[in-house]
Amino acid sequence: MLTYIVVTLSLISPTLTWTSATLDCSTLSQDVVKEIQSYSSTARKIIDHVVSGPGKGRTYDDLAIFVDKFGHRQTGSKSLENSIDYMVQLLIEKNFSEVKTERVTVVPWARGAEVAWMTKPRKKSLNILGLGGSVGTGRRSITGRVHVVSTFEELHKTAKQASGKIVLVNAPFVTYNQTVKYRVQAAIEAAGVRALAVLLRSITPFSINSPHTGSMVYKEGLPKIPAAAVTIEDAELMARMIKRGDIVEVSLYMEAASKPETVSRNTIADIRGSERPNEIVLISGHLDSWDVGQGAMDDGGGAFISWRALETLRELGLTPRRTLRAALWTSEEQGLDGSKAYFKEHANETHVIAMESDFGTFQPLGLIFEGKSTQAKCIAREVVSLLSAINATQLVKGNPGPDLKWFVEAGVPAAGLLTQNDKYFYFHHTEGDTMSVLNRAELDLCTALWTVVSYVFADLSVRLPR
Amino acid sequence: MLTYIVVTLSLISPTLTWTSATLDCSTLSQDVVKEIQSYSSTARKIIDHVVSGPGKGRTYDDLAIFVDKFGHRQTGSKSLENSIDYMVQLLIEKNFSEVKTERVTVVPWARGAEVAWMTKPRKKSLNILGLGGSVGTGRRSITGRVHVVSTFEELHKTAKQASGKIVLVNAPFVTYNQTVKYRVQAAIEAAGVRALAVLLRSITPFSINSPHTGSMVYKEGLPKIPAAAVTIEDAELMARMIKRGDIVEVSLYMEAASKPETVSRNTIADIRGSERPNEIVLISGHLDSWDVGQGAMDDGGGAFISWRALETLRELGLTPRRTLRAALWTSEEQGLDGSKAYFKEHANETHVIAMESDFGTFQPLGLIFEGKSTQAKCIAREVVSLLSAINATQLVKGNPGPDLKWFVEAGVPAAGLLTQNDKYFYFHHTEGDTMSVLNRAELDLCTALWTVVSYVFADLSVRLPR
Repeated sequence: MLTYIVVTLSLISPTLTWTSATLDCSTLSQDVVKEIQSYSSTARKIIDHVVSGPGKGRTYDDLAIFVDKFGHRQTGSKSLENSIDYMVQLLIEKNFSEVKTERVTVVPWARGAEVAWMTKPRKKSLNILGLGGSVGTGRRSITGRVHVVSTFEELHKTAKQASGKIVLVNAPFVTYNQTVKYRVQAAIEAAGVRALAVLLRSITPFSINSPHTGSMVYKEGLPKIPAAAVTIEDAELMARMIKRGDIVEVSLYMEAASKPETVSRNTIADIRGSERPNEIVLISGHLDSWDVGQGAMDDGGGAFISWRALETLRELGLTPRRTLRAALWTSEEQGLDGSKAYFKEHANETHVIAMESDFGTFQPLGLIFEGKSTQAKCIAREVVSLLSAINATQLVKGNPGPDLKWFVEAGVPAAGLLTQNDKYFYFHHTEGDTMSVLNRAELDLCTALWTVVSYVFADLSVRLPR
Repeated sequence: MLTYIVVTLSLISPTLTWTSATLDCSTLSQDVVKEIQSYSSTARKIIDHVVSGPGKGRTYDDLAIFVDKFGHRQTGSKSLENSIDYMVQLLIEKNFSEVKTERVTVVPWARGAEVAWMTKPRKKSLNILGLGGSVGTGRRSITGRVHVVSTFEELHKTAKQASGKIVLVNAPFVTYNQTVKYRVQAAIEAAGVRALAVLLRSITPFSINSPHTGSMVYKEGLPKIPAAAVTIEDAELMARMIKRGDIVEVSLYMEAASKPETVSRNTIADIRGSERPNEIVLISGHLDSWDVGQGAMDDGGGAFISWRALETLRELGLTPRRTLRAALWTSEEQGLDGSKAYFKEHANETHVIAMESDFGTFQPLGLIFEGKSTQAKCIAREVVSLLSAINATQLVKGNPGPDLKWFVEAGVPAAGLLTQNDKYFYFHHTEGDTMSVLNRAELDLCTALWTVVSYVFADLSVRLPR
């Protein structure tokens, strides 16, 4: 999950649940309600098939084979392109209506070697991860005294002391969305006060000395300074030392650099609609990952439940009225490049709803829904009620997924997978994003939910209003 | 916390709580009960002093200064010896009856550079930590096919396949004490089937790709093969690959080696008893740590609550009848060398009870008690009842602390600090053992408990029976 343009993000832990108290659905036609409820036996069939039938365990197993084979899949890497080739071949064998890739222009970023030491008041290695998009230190180490702040306000107030130093932004985690601005904008703010470089306390509520990478931005007219994440532990250590009056000095070496523009691919698979093939229900996840961890949680799980939903319908002989499309985005982490290119390329098509799973595939709870139309929300709430057998009937307001940004901005109804993802940010953008954090039964439940919801949206006689 | 001689360890998560149902104290004299209860106002005074009075926050702050100044303190390191010098100076300034060090012969072990790669079926770096005591790979890499087992039984059954390979012991964590045998004995078992080296799934229930070091042993007559911990994630990855029929190959390079015998020191501070100075109540923790992390939890906290208990009594003008001694052990992790030397040196002294805190200083719950005498248990249970104000009145059976082994074997009553240490093994012997896992208020509560209990044991008219 990327948070490139942080201002567009809603809360990732959505707080508003659309219940009968917060959403008035009295104008929703009883015919529609009845029609949605008529899918309950189909929903049950899908759930049984995936959770305890022939589909049991397959999302996890197929994902493990994929993740174990390719490891991380950073934009610009051979590993990502090989993994896309593999997915295309795999999807072709599934006998969907259409499987194709679409070219996406990307600007890769590569970490290269990186190392940091606290050199004063004592020597200690720092476990860092350069932030995605950062410049390097120019074939030399940058050594500087550390100036620590907890907020950008504090940085502005202490601008004079920060000048010529390495700024450490030691902002404790509140929620991801409240705290991630420090990662995205720290290099701008620190450059604005003439800092040499910026170190960021990793954006996480929990750490075993684990650094978290992620994207960041620069601003025209300001120097591009190197930016790296340090661990909570090292940030707190340096903050304590400085508070006591110690002079803390850090030496930072980073080879990070953006690479020449190149081409990657979105991967798209369709089940062509039986009656209204030009109306599209889109379900998606992204195949690319950061260069740390294995991209199992972010976002192998989301990509795999999406194509597995199509496969499940094929196995059950269910073809919806509308076209159901699985899109496996490329270059999400590097700037939403894949979904942006798709949205431009497919501007003339009618997307009934766009869905993405990019906040983890843990115990599913329901959907995160974004859309202006009350009728659409009411329909969505009825649809998730079909998941009562797996206790995943919540419909909440919030950011449904980074790649859905373009759809949301255009007024297309959008939905994300809502799961019990309390520990998502423990592993997010770290070496800990591996198959070990995922659970076979939970992935089945996510696949079942994703299949039921997308099928019903694609098959309903009424099109989801905007 | 070391588990060098694992067979002597009881459960670290004690299961038997001595309640009125499991411990018959009907023969305990009512005079003793009354006398113990007469300490309740003193207990309250101590708790108030430490938790909300002049002592508030000082254990954490003093420990943070210490840990931040020296970092990890491995046996044989300058850092450990410097930290001992610092402690001696600090304790001398506290004006205790006596402060001294005692020489301990130690055999240090040093990790040196170490690196491991999975080289087949694809190249992936493995995040390893050589196990303490392991030999190195002899200035070259050892490359071999990986043979995976979940138990030693499985290893014995597949001895033929294991021969000439690198054995991966992928035993899931059950409890520490049930699982740690794999770390301690894996090199013996793997050498017994002619393996080249052994990789151990880290002994932990939770991981962010975090390797855990710890001690291990070799056996006379068997080759000494290199032994390193891998992360849960990498162990599971390789196990999945092998299960699918992939050939997994690993290349391992370790410079680990034992170093020449040298001398370290235990640090000892006494408050001399006012009436029975030759009877000693011992409270302790160890100053040494592994070379990863900062030794804050294991065992800076235990060492610091021990001398802080003495300081608290001094501040309150409380001098017990018996001598209260704080011992800050050296070289616990390397083989309990400090406590062993102390026990030998002080064989002629009378230890009424020996206490250690080495399982973390989190929210305190009471005491882990080990002793043959029912009367002693009954007295201890009465003593912990003085801690009802801080909800730390449990008395449970279990291993009270690694360094108490010698005392327990000699029949000396022994006690350990029982805390809510669910996450202890998340951080144990990793880079995550830092001040960030400790909590100021919890350390105060631990200090208060440690002070109350040790003071009452040292001051009671009746000596704890054996």
